[in-house]
Amino acid sequence: MKDLVTSAKTEVSEQKGQDATQRRVWIKNEAARVGLAETLSTYVMMAFGLGSVAQVVTGQGAFGQYISINIAFGLAVAMGTYVGGKVSGAHMNGAVSFTMCVFGRLTWKMLPLYICAQLLGSFLASGTIYAIYYEAIHNYCGGNLTVTGPKATAGIFATYPAPYLSLVAGFVDQVFGTAMLLLCVMALSDQKNKPPPAGCEPVIVGLLVMLIGMSLGSNSGYAINPTRDIAPRVFTAIAGWGSEVFRAGHCWWWVPLVAPSVGGVLGAGVYKAFVELHHPHPSEQNRVQVEDEVIPLVKRV
Amino acid sequence: MKDLVTSAKTEVSEQKGQDATQRRVWIKNEAARVGLAETLSTYVMMAFGLGSVAQVVTGQGAFGQYISINIAFGLAVAMGTYVGGKVSGAHMNGAVSFTMCVFGRLTWKMLPLYICAQLLGSFLASGTIYAIYYEAIHNYCGGNLTVTGPKATAGIFATYPAPYLSLVAGFVDQVFGTAMLLLCVMALSDQKNKPPPAGCEPVIVGLLVMLIGMSLGSNSGYAINPTRDIAPRVFTAIAGWGSEVFRAGHCWWWVPLVAPSVGGVLGAGVYKAFVELHHPHPSEQNRVQVEDEVIPLVKRV
Amino acid sequence: MKDLVTSAKTEVSEQKGQDATQRRVWIKNEAARVGLAETLSTYVMMAFGLGSVAQVVTGQGAFGQYISINIAFGLAVAMGTYVGGKVSGAHMNGAVSFTMCVFGRLTWKMLPLYICAQLLGSFLASGTIYAIYYEAIHNYCGGNLTVTGPKATAGIFATYPAPYLSLVAGFVDQVFGTAMLLLCVMALSDQKNKPPPAGCEPVIVGLLVMLIGMSLGSNSGYAINPTRDIAPRVFTAIAGWGSEVFRAGHCWWWVPLVAPSVGGVLGAGVYKAFVELHHPHPSEQNRVQVEDEVIPLVKRV
Amino acid sequence: MKDLVTSAKTEVSEQKGQDATQRRVWIKNEAARVGLAETLSTYVMMAFGLGSVAQVVTGQGAFGQYISINIAFGLAVAMGTYVGGKVSGAHMNGAVSFTMCVFGRLTWKMLPLYICAQLLGSFLASGTIYAIYYEAIHNYCGGNLTVTGPKATAGIFATYPAPYLSLVAGFVDQVFGTAMLLLCVMALSDQKNKPPPAGCEPVIVGLLVMLIGMSLGSNSGYAINPTRDIAPRVFTAIAGWGSEVFRAGHCWWWVPLVAPSVGGVLGAGVYKAFVELHHPHPSEQNRVQVEDEVIPLVKRV
Repeated sequence: MKDLVTSAKTEVSEQKGQDATQRRVWIKNEAARVGLAETLSTYVMMAFGLGSVAQVVTGQGAFGQYISINIAFGLAVAMGTYVGGKVSGAHMNGAVSFTMCVFGRLTWKMLPLYICAQLLGSFLASGTIYAIYYEAIHNYCGGNLTVTGPKATAGIFATYPAPYLSLVAGFVDQVFGTAMLLLCVMALSDQKNKPPPAGCEPVIVGLLVMLIGMSLGSNSGYAINPTRDIAPRVFTAIAGWGSEVFRAGHCWWWVPLVAPSVGGVLGAGVYKAFVELHHPHPSEQNRVQVEDEVIPLVKRV
Repeated sequence: MKDLVTSAKTEVSEQKGQDATQRRVWIKNEAARVGLAETLSTYVMMAFGLGSVAQVVTGQGAFGQYISINIAFGLAVAMGTYVGGKVSGAHMNGAVSFTMCVFGRLTWKMLPLYICAQLLGSFLASGTIYAIYYEAIHNYCGGNLTVTGPKATAGIFATYPAPYLSLVAGFVDQVFGTAMLLLCVMALSDQKNKPPPAGCEPVIVGLLVMLIGMSLGSNSGYAINPTRDIAPRVFTAIAGWGSEVFRAGHCWWWVPLVAPSVGGVLGAGVYKAFVELHHPHPSEQNRVQVEDEVIPLVKRV
Repeated sequence: MKDLVTSAKTEVSEQKGQDATQRRVWIKNEAARVGLAETLSTYVMMAFGLGSVAQVVTGQGAFGQYISINIAFGLAVAMGTYVGGKVSGAHMNGAVSFTMCVFGRLTWKMLPLYICAQLLGSFLASGTIYAIYYEAIHNYCGGNLTVTGPKATAGIFATYPAPYLSLVAGFVDQVFGTAMLLLCVMALSDQKNKPPPAGCEPVIVGLLVMLIGMSLGSNSGYAINPTRDIAPRVFTAIAGWGSEVFRAGHCWWWVPLVAPSVGGVLGAGVYKAFVELHHPHPSEQNRVQVEDEVIPLVKRV
Repeated sequence: MKDLVTSAKTEVSEQKGQDATQRRVWIKNEAARVGLAETLSTYVMMAFGLGSVAQVVTGQGAFGQYISINIAFGLAVAMGTYVGGKVSGAHMNGAVSFTMCVFGRLTWKMLPLYICAQLLGSFLASGTIYAIYYEAIHNYCGGNLTVTGPKATAGIFATYPAPYLSLVAGFVDQVFGTAMLLLCVMALSDQKNKPPPAGCEPVIVGLLVMLIGMSLGSNSGYAINPTRDIAPRVFTAIAGWGSEVFRAGHCWWWVPLVAPSVGGVLGAGVYKAFVELHHPHPSEQNRVQVEDEVIPLVKRV
């Protein structure tokens, strides 16, 4: 026991040394800190997410089904959010960052930083997952990297619409999916409503993304995120799938870029219009609290 | 860094301006606030829920199975509850509102408002999901919108009983399912029992609905909710499925309207009779706390 | 708004009247309160649990697979625990109550009450589920209620061993499954270790039961609970399956009665021997807290 | 009621007696306490984890699919963590312990103890699961214990690479999987970021392991843990599968021993480099808190 305490004391002084080191490499610049955290959290989310698609596609049913992708992408969002956490807020989604700017929760000046960090994290994750599943993918498709057809593998990285889907319907689908995402994210972060306990939000947002995949996923693969979609698409164009990734689905590529930004603002706006704007003002709080004592049961479930 | 602070200060004054705007559109009327929140929360729940059925039916096994619907409807209830939250309590279910009135947790005067809001939210969600899955549904059924048969699609929106089910058995099934729902909801909101942590209730209620779908779902599709069922049924009657939606299943349509209201009161009453009524009174609290110190272990698991 | 407040005031006086009513029916007797709560919580757990098996068996793959039963039984335990909660502790399992008695967490005098309440709740739930799924079961098996064979339905209610399993191996299987259950339950309720947050325990115990079903379920159906198994077995014997329910599986019926009680004590004892007994005493707390400051990181994950 | 109180008082004096007993067997030695807790938590995790693989393999699709293994291993980690909890930290993974040493969260002196405890727990769990599933395994494979081929059962215990996987790719796969594990574990335990609520960490870490299995599991079975892999491998070598368990997959056995240790340090280092090192120092805290008031919304999601 004594040795243990002694060694622990040594450790303490070591830790002080470590603190000094930490101080040396410590980045005071807020923007750099935010950029690093946003890049890493997007990387984590995308690596787990794309990995699950790669596993299901190349596993041909033996290593998970569509529902595995829904669950995995949801958990991937949760883990990414824990990583970026309080530092960058872990948007990991250009449409989320854009919506936050529109509603004054993020300065416009920070938007390019978030977008770049997200694109970088997403691109690096695409490369990593291609490297990790390189042999699995080539074993599955016989080395023939295709965008459509029975052994298509481009869908591991970017989203493509179902064969029956028109471009207009796909655009609406992406607007609506992202609107539902932001509507719920605004509700979950509304401290005057019924937010989840501190530290649980990442899991709840993960469940939300899982739900969107189970409910609004079959039409066009629920990108609901411009930076999540374009970076892997560019990666696949470079890595061997070629320019077909931009031509497929009647030039589908631009839809996940534009529609989610529209949908995000729409969904967040609807939540504000229906709920957030009407919360009692602090000046009215007293009156309401009295009411609360009188009819507290309207609010309980 | 300085720029950032400056821009942030500008933002603050902007925010004050925004507060003024907010004040202008702010709805002081409690009923209007509750109605808006209940409409939006029901819309969110129904859009996600119906979306998951549409995805599973039109996906023909490639985009989820029955269990996906169970999980998605559960999570849909959770998200709807976060949206309506403290404002309306997010009943999203006429049988819940009715039961709350019966047990004095909601004034009867508010009931029509809740019912209307739920019907409106549910109807709008049906329309939205039909629009979002329009091409998928028509691609699946070849444009022939039917209520029964191998390519039936009316079941995406409203519930229909299994072929073997008699009307009486279906009625009992719906009474029982809703009774279990309300029994557990009463337990989960009983602050003298063992309620979930604040902010977690929406997820637990969502798990409860998921459980009901996995356990009491195959007989007649677990409507357990009059407003959830009738609004989409009316929508389908208008949108092209015709009056068959009311004739199918021996005129099944009225069962999810009536049975859940009976079941809700029954289930909540059973919980009250077995547990809630017998909690020690505050005046008895002291005596009981002493006992607690003596045999605290009866209560621990 | 004024009307609302007025009606709310009326409601308050009504509530006082209700309090008087409540006082009249209020059961002061601790044993009766505990018995009612334990009966209801067991009923809820068993109704949801058996319902999920009935749904999967009669649904023939269209309404869930084996994993649905695992998830549903886990959530059923969670909901039952919320119902019985602080009143009875919601053991819902004779082996849990027995083990709590052995380790002094429940007075032996209370054991018969718990057992009777559990048997009653379990029996009533069996009857309810048979009623709810009566038409589904008879439609599935053509009215021929059998214990073994391709259309066997007795397994909806009680557990039966796999064809390959010997009685000794089955006994060991049940001892081990229940040992794992109680080992983890003791850990989860050990306040000096790392217990889940207050109000989350029911869900974590539910996840534990779900895990046991996914990990130790295929040999003999993870009864791990004497009262959960015998009551439905007796019900089926009476309801039409006949005495075969006791003869099947080399007279399997007594194994889930005896083995879980042995296993429960074993598992709880192992946890105590490996962890609980060695927690630092309060008198040693100071010394340990000092150590904690020195090497706090051993304990973090 | 009176009897109950009396018997309870007796119990209290009994409990004092029990305390004395407890005091006698109480282990003051910190190392012994930690070793026992780490052994038991690893045992619990491995028994549940291997049990789920045994169930899925021998059940041939009737008792769960690949996703059941992912879920079960995740929950197994959660339960193991609750068991080891605050006593040992429940690493249950040699690569985690090693990484904790590298980053000063565990004294190097403790590392051999953790490794031995993990090996012991893992070995005992392998033996237990072989005993519990002995008849199931022999019924499945006809008594012929093989490492490869259609009825191979060695994969129940240790991991083996996919046929298409080269040794280099497998090494990278294991480095990456463990890097992602430790990256996220470091984020989840970073109190200056957004950690889960106290008592919820075990479940979140369990979800993380579940995610790794769904996302990075198909190449080589996500050992991501040297002690989890080698102990069962040695067990199978002894128990009848023979030395083939070391030769299979181009002598795969050493990869899960070496690669996770490399990956763990890499992943934890990346998190530190991208996020943890740059948290504002306490001396800077004031300045940052002011900023927080000005632009608090950057951090909210």
